[in-house]
Amino acid sequence: MNIPSDILQQAVDQLRSLPGVGARTALRYALHVESSSADEVQRLADSLLALKHSLRHCQLCHNLSDTDLCPICASPKRRRDTVCVVENVQSVMAVEATGQYQGLYHVLGGVISPIDGVGIHDLELDSLVARVRQAEPEPVAEVILALPGTMEGDTTAYYIYRQLAPLGVKVTAIARGVAVGDNLEYADELTLGRSIASRHPFEAQ
Amino acid sequence: MNIPSDILQQAVDQLRSLPGVGARTALRYALHVESSSADEVQRLADSLLALKHSLRHCQLCHNLSDTDLCPICASPKRRRDTVCVVENVQSVMAVEATGQYQGLYHVLGGVISPIDGVGIHDLELDSLVARVRQAEPEPVAEVILALPGTMEGDTTAYYIYRQLAPLGVKVTAIARGVAVGDNLEYADELTLGRSIASRHPFEAQ
Repeated sequence: MNIPSDILQQAVDQLRSLPGVGARTALRYALHVESSSADEVQRLADSLLALKHSLRHCQLCHNLSDTDLCPICASPKRRRDTVCVVENVQSVMAVEATGQYQGLYHVLGGVISPIDGVGIHDLELDSLVARVRQAEPEPVAEVILALPGTMEGDTTAYYIYRQLAPLGVKVTAIARGVAVGDNLEYADELTLGRSIASRHPFEAQ
Repeated sequence: MNIPSDILQQAVDQLRSLPGVGARTALRYALHVESSSADEVQRLADSLLALKHSLRHCQLCHNLSDTDLCPICASPKRRRDTVCVVENVQSVMAVEATGQYQGLYHVLGGVISPIDGVGIHDLELDSLVARVRQAEPEPVAEVILALPGTMEGDTTAYYIYRQLAPLGVKVTAIARGVAVGDNLEYADELTLGRSIASRHPFEAQ
């Protein structure tokens, strides 16, 4: 593309750094911004800067938070003896959306992935072990591993299991299986295989 | 979506104002920004603000420009007696990409669209008439209408034709027809019909 302005070109280059945004989409975004009011653009720019400068990580669970302790960790209604270990904030939002979970979280900030250069010390793994070991203000009875069903997720789950097993805490993992409402023929072989291996006594509901 | 942070929520709300961006994409963008370096975020914010505060419109053709006169209008290599009328900067880029056009442009900033509240005075129509009438520094010999092939584009083209015809300038429109490389069976009826109506003497190349 032959963009007639350096200022526009720079904005397009910057917007292309966003995930999944190519040159055409970046140009559309930039021209939209150009035609917005000065106030709107200022609010957009301020909100992006605030992400970097005002957003914090919860001191306990490392979830993104506006405060030192996130609303979930600060809530007196949540069970403090159960910790759900997840990859990132999107996972927290996904679990929260189910309305099924009343415990706390531990956000690793990724999964172990040597190919992407993500090692053990890039993640909140030590702080998870410390959290279980510390047992304050209440001991952790169960750690639920809710990590992605990928090789990296499985590796991370195994590493955590090895670290936590000696501490005597119960370590569980979320079930893998055929999605609710799905036909068996549409499930991939690995998922269906794991679903059969993890079969459980039938319960009439 | 239950976003755990007001700062994150605000950024998502702002990013959703971009064209075609829904809540999920906005969250992906926001989390990407959050995990970028402070320098990167500053550059992104600055480039967006520059779009609003530093980008100008060319005084002659109204294309987006960093300078009072855009590089096309300022170029001594372009023919100044031919003016191509287009809807927006994307159209200029599309025509420039063909490498077939050596004249100047006139960017309307839209097309007449009563439904969207875009009237005659919201567009650079008077300035086009003035430009043809003024005939300085060189008279305009031909105005090429390269507007979208929609009802709004056709209405705008007709309005311009009515304004310019009394001034004795030659007014032409880009050809509509079956795309190069396309089979007739895949062209829509309107396009194929217009393509037959606009047939021209065959030239062996």
